[in-house]
Amino acid sequence: MLLLPLKTRVSTMAGVRLSFTGTNLSRPSTSPVRPSCHKPTTVAARVAQNLSYWDSIHSDIESRLKKAIPIREPISVFEPMHHLTFAPPKTTASALCVAACELVGGNREDAIVAASAIHLMHAAIYTHDHLMLTDRLRSDQETEPKIQHRFGPNIELLTGDGIFPFAFELLAGSMDPAVDNSDKILRVIIEITRAVGTEGMVDGQDSDVEFDQLSCQPLRRLHGCGAACGAILGGGGEEEVERLKRYGVYAGKIQGLLSDMGRHEGGKVKLAEKWRALALKELEYFDSKKIEQISTIVTM
Amino acid sequence: MLLLPLKTRVSTMAGVRLSFTGTNLSRPSTSPVRPSCHKPTTVAARVAQNLSYWDSIHSDIESRLKKAIPIREPISVFEPMHHLTFAPPKTTASALCVAACELVGGNREDAIVAASAIHLMHAAIYTHDHLMLTDRLRSDQETEPKIQHRFGPNIELLTGDGIFPFAFELLAGSMDPAVDNSDKILRVIIEITRAVGTEGMVDGQDSDVEFDQLSCQPLRRLHGCGAACGAILGGGGEEEVERLKRYGVYAGKIQGLLSDMGRHEGGKVKLAEKWRALALKELEYFDSKKIEQISTIVTM
Repeated sequence: MLLLPLKTRVSTMAGVRLSFTGTNLSRPSTSPVRPSCHKPTTVAARVAQNLSYWDSIHSDIESRLKKAIPIREPISVFEPMHHLTFAPPKTTASALCVAACELVGGNREDAIVAASAIHLMHAAIYTHDHLMLTDRLRSDQETEPKIQHRFGPNIELLTGDGIFPFAFELLAGSMDPAVDNSDKILRVIIEITRAVGTEGMVDGQDSDVEFDQLSCQPLRRLHGCGAACGAILGGGGEEEVERLKRYGVYAGKIQGLLSDMGRHEGGKVKLAEKWRALALKELEYFDSKKIEQISTIVTM
Repeated sequence: MLLLPLKTRVSTMAGVRLSFTGTNLSRPSTSPVRPSCHKPTTVAARVAQNLSYWDSIHSDIESRLKKAIPIREPISVFEPMHHLTFAPPKTTASALCVAACELVGGNREDAIVAASAIHLMHAAIYTHDHLMLTDRLRSDQETEPKIQHRFGPNIELLTGDGIFPFAFELLAGSMDPAVDNSDKILRVIIEITRAVGTEGMVDGQDSDVEFDQLSCQPLRRLHGCGAACGAILGGGGEEEVERLKRYGVYAGKIQGLLSDMGRHEGGKVKLAEKWRALALKELEYFDSKKIEQISTIVTM
C-alpha cells in the first residue's frame, strides 16, 4: 500500500506558510507578474485603496476571532489556543470569503463568522503540520521553525484538535432564526469540511504529479471554499457561487505558485498568467463596476 | 503558566479504551453493582433482550459508517481512515444517541447519522490520544499498545485530522428539506463541538481534583452529548433534552468509574450506586413503559 508521507502534506501547505504583512498582497509593484496596462498614478492610488480594502477585512476577521477566543481561565487551555490561532500566517482564503459575500450584495457581517472559521481551519492544519514532534521526521527539515513553539508538542496536538470543532461551533452558533440562515450555514459547513477533510487529503496526493497540477491543492481548495462560502452567505445564486468558487481556486493556485517563486521562474510566470486570465474570465459574469476589489487578489 | 499534560488527556480517555464485545454491557450478572430487585428468570430474559437492543444499535451504526467510509481509491487515504474509524473500542455514547431518540418517539433513522458522527469524534480523539509518537512521551506508558499501529504516526495524525471534519460533513449532509431538519442538525453540531472542543479540554483539566469528580469527563461529556443529540433529533421537548443529557452524563460517569474497577473498589461501587440513582431519577420524567431499554445502560 502506498502510504501518504508527511512530506506531501507539508509541501502542499507551503503556500500558506508565507509571512504576509497584513495581507500577502503587498508584493512590490515591480513584480514581474503584475499587469502593466494601467497608468502609473492610477495604479498607485488603486493599489493603496485595494490594500486598505483587504487590510480592513483581515482586521475585522482578527477582531472577531479575538472576541471569540479571549485569553481567559483556564489559562492553560485558552492561552495556547489564542497563540496557535494567531501564530500562523494569515490566509487570504478567509479574506476572499468576505470579498465574495460583498460582491454578490451581502453584508460583511453575513460572512465574517465563516471567514473566521476558515482561518481557524487553516490555523489547526498549520499547527498540526508544524508540530514540534513531526518536525523531527521531515526529510526537508528547515533551519527556521515555521511556528513559534511556545508550548509543548502535546499542547500543540491537543489545541489543534480543539480548534477544529471550535470552528464548527462558531459557525453553527451563528444560526439566526430571525434571518432563517440555517440552510446556508449547513451548506457552508459542507463546503469547509470537504475542503479540509478527505477531499483535501485526496488532493494532497497528486502534489508532485505534474507541473501544471503543482502543489497548491490545499491553498486552491481553501480559497475556492472561502469564495464559495462568501457567495452562499451573501445570498448569491448557484451560478455566482460556482463562478466565485472557480475564481477562488485559481486565486489559490496562483498564490501557491508565486509563494514558491525563484525556482522554475519563467515557467511559473507563464502559468500564473494563464490562471489569472482564467480567473478574470469567471468575474466577467458579474457587474464590472463591482469586481475591481476582489480581482486584485489575482492581479496585484 | 500551568501546562495541560498529555497524561491528563490520556487518563481522561481511560473509559473509552474498554474493549467492548459488541457493547460494554456484557458485564457478568454477578457484578457487585447490579441491582437485584428482579426475579432471576425475568432478569435473564431481560438481559438477553436488552443486550440485543444495544447490539442492534451498534450494528446499525457500524453499517452506516461502513457505507460512509468504504475502502476506495485512493487506498492510501481511505484504508487508514477505515482502519482508524473501526480500530478504537466502541463507545456507548453513540448508542445512547439512538436510544434517546427512540425514547422520545423518534425513529432510529433520525439519529443514526448523529450517532455515527459521535463515534467518529471518539475515533479521532482516540487516534490522536494513541499516536505512536506521543506514546513515547507518556510517563504511564503501558506495555500493550491500545491501538493497532498499522500506519505511521504521520498517517495517524493526518487521518485523525481528516476524521474530525468528515464527521461534521456527514452531519451537515443529513440536512433534508423535506423534513426541514436544518435547525436540529445545527443544534446537534453545537452539542458535539462543545463536547469535544474547548469545553471538553477545560473539563479534562480537573481530572485529578477530587474522587467524586474523578476523571470520566470526556466520557461524561460524550455520553451527555449523545443522549441530548438523540433527544433533539427525535423531536423531544426542552425538558426531555435536558433530562436525557443529565442521564447521559451520569451514564458516562458510571462507565468511566467502572472501567477502572479494581482500585478503590469499595468507594467506587458506592459512588456508582449514587450516580445510578440520580440517573434513574432523570428517567422518571418519561413514560415508565418506555424507559426499560435505555435504563439498562446504567443498571446492567
